[in-house]
Amino acid sequence: MSLFYPEDLNYMARAIRLAERGRFTTSPNPCVGCVIVKNNQIIGEGFHIQAGGPHAEINALTQVEQSQATAQGATAYVTLEPCSHTGKTPPCASALIKAGVATVIVGMEDPNPLVSGRGIQMLRDAGIQVHQGCLESACKKINPGFNKRMTHKRPFVQVKLASSLDGRTAMASGESKWITSYQARKDVQLYRAKACAILTGSGTVMADNPQMNVRESDFPLTDYPIESIRQPAKIIIDNQSQLTPDLNIFASETPVFVVKNKIKVTPPQQNWPKHVTQIELSGNDHNIDLTALMLELGACQMNHIWVEAGAKLAGALIQQGLVDELIIYQAPKLMGENTKGLLDVPNLTELSQAVEWQYADVRQIGPDLRLTLRAK
Amino acid sequence: MSLFYPEDLNYMARAIRLAERGRFTTSPNPCVGCVIVKNNQIIGEGFHIQAGGPHAEINALTQVEQSQATAQGATAYVTLEPCSHTGKTPPCASALIKAGVATVIVGMEDPNPLVSGRGIQMLRDAGIQVHQGCLESACKKINPGFNKRMTHKRPFVQVKLASSLDGRTAMASGESKWITSYQARKDVQLYRAKACAILTGSGTVMADNPQMNVRESDFPLTDYPIESIRQPAKIIIDNQSQLTPDLNIFASETPVFVVKNKIKVTPPQQNWPKHVTQIELSGNDHNIDLTALMLELGACQMNHIWVEAGAKLAGALIQQGLVDELIIYQAPKLMGENTKGLLDVPNLTELSQAVEWQYADVRQIGPDLRLTLRAK
Repeated sequence: MSLFYPEDLNYMARAIRLAERGRFTTSPNPCVGCVIVKNNQIIGEGFHIQAGGPHAEINALTQVEQSQATAQGATAYVTLEPCSHTGKTPPCASALIKAGVATVIVGMEDPNPLVSGRGIQMLRDAGIQVHQGCLESACKKINPGFNKRMTHKRPFVQVKLASSLDGRTAMASGESKWITSYQARKDVQLYRAKACAILTGSGTVMADNPQMNVRESDFPLTDYPIESIRQPAKIIIDNQSQLTPDLNIFASETPVFVVKNKIKVTPPQQNWPKHVTQIELSGNDHNIDLTALMLELGACQMNHIWVEAGAKLAGALIQQGLVDELIIYQAPKLMGENTKGLLDVPNLTELSQAVEWQYADVRQIGPDLRLTLRAK
Repeated sequence: MSLFYPEDLNYMARAIRLAERGRFTTSPNPCVGCVIVKNNQIIGEGFHIQAGGPHAEINALTQVEQSQATAQGATAYVTLEPCSHTGKTPPCASALIKAGVATVIVGMEDPNPLVSGRGIQMLRDAGIQVHQGCLESACKKINPGFNKRMTHKRPFVQVKLASSLDGRTAMASGESKWITSYQARKDVQLYRAKACAILTGSGTVMADNPQMNVRESDFPLTDYPIESIRQPAKIIIDNQSQLTPDLNIFASETPVFVVKNKIKVTPPQQNWPKHVTQIELSGNDHNIDLTALMLELGACQMNHIWVEAGAKLAGALIQQGLVDELIIYQAPKLMGENTKGLLDVPNLTELSQAVEWQYADVRQIGPDLRLTLRAK
């Protein structure tokens, strides 16, 4: 890894902020930002907006052209290694070479082990100086989902939980809607908007009849053009074949995947609308194989799954090591033991068996805390 | 309330820092700091160290004298209204008058409603300018225990809890010693050292056989002269008369109060050492009257109680509105439902009955979080 000058860090930080503007739209592609600098002046910058559209480097080079400048001899800062292959658009490495860029500073290598390093090699072969690893860990954080899918063929999985101080999620009666504050519920909208899909179970859908969408009225970024956010798909595990097309979750045109166990007897045929797809997976009597589900979602180019489910499904995902982050909204309330617990995780007999995490972030959201925990 | 100049706030902030130096020693007296300023120079400063010793104002005036200066025409900054009565020492208001101080800036009035304002009046009667309310809320925070006892005749009560993310405190087997980290256990030492007494139940004492003292090896302030810290007294509720003199908690000379229900049959007479006092209180079949206990402790000049108890006693204190702060050490672990819960609070039937708190402070202590919650 190279050592970088302070100005390199500044320009890369700018490229990271640009990249993040695509966080609600680029999937299944990664967020990427690019800044082109000549004589210590930014002459062009851009970010990737959505799959099929131009990559960040192309948007930045276009801006250079539009301002009658030339990238000849310039330095390009890119958060992610420029691509070397022709996909929906021509390779960015070629475009940088053609534009005469002299130096490319790269945040992180392509996480896909099959192509990693190829873009950098193509640039070097053309005589361009390449320095990689500039603000690398910050660049990696932009795309947890894309990186996870490229390296593990499975999506990055965040599980949302809401509980009281004593780890309770609902009254014994099931009453749970207002444990956390409306500020917390608004905050959830940001996570939904970043995810490729929301995963839940039919129990939650039957109990609450939720829409599980991103709603303009609740979206906390009031100046963001919400119509440009793609609604996350919905994935519902429905082993008991309880779901019916009249539920709110099917009301919009957003794709819904209803996942069932292959070995179950054929359910009564529902008249599903066109945007609903049924998936059958292997599993045992009561459950589907959740690892198989995640590999299937990865194969469907889903980078990032946001789970809003009950204690059983959330507990099973955690238990099977499929969860990358827990997002816990913790209300400053005490509810007592005659209530529903946070998670069904297997009964422990020794404390050393407890599943361990680490706090990655803690924020106050209205009267509640939002705890972010990463698998240890 | 007056408006203050920036230099007033600076000098009062200095007086607050001085006051806090007494936090492990002044009880049952409050922590008080005093700074004496003349021509924009600090000519003397002091704080109250322990009951029976000189008050902060006297220590500051002594420092003025020792440096051959004079407080004639000076301004005195005091975190708490100077006393007007002769207790173990002569009134501080008289000393300030005698020294010729021209102005006194007071942080907060004496919280004792019976004497509040008298010291200020005595100063004003002598022609001294008095401005009160300088950094008042910060001055109040120095002495939560003293303030509570003066206004409510009961101590300030902090309940310590340690739990996993899912609100579990122990395995079903009772195994619990290492839920939180050694850093959290060290942090607890600071709270013990500030408290007048540690309150617990005989169940905890019988299960863990703890010493419940402040230990030099675990004390996190390595440069603090630990020998000057008074060990907190210990209060054990023992309705079942389970305690025996051989337990670790009785091993040192620190006073221990064994609290029982008056209506219980007389227990087998134990041969208690001299530092153990038995207290009998009214109550019903199974419990003592906890409010009566707190009033009794207030009458014994206890300002500040630190509770390290099981789910039942902690839950009862909370339920009866006797708890001012919860200090929760939350380990980043998931333990599952087959384990012991955080608190016995009565069974709720509706979510609106949940006991509500507010987050006052959140810190990372080693791998754990320390949550401070205040009664709402």
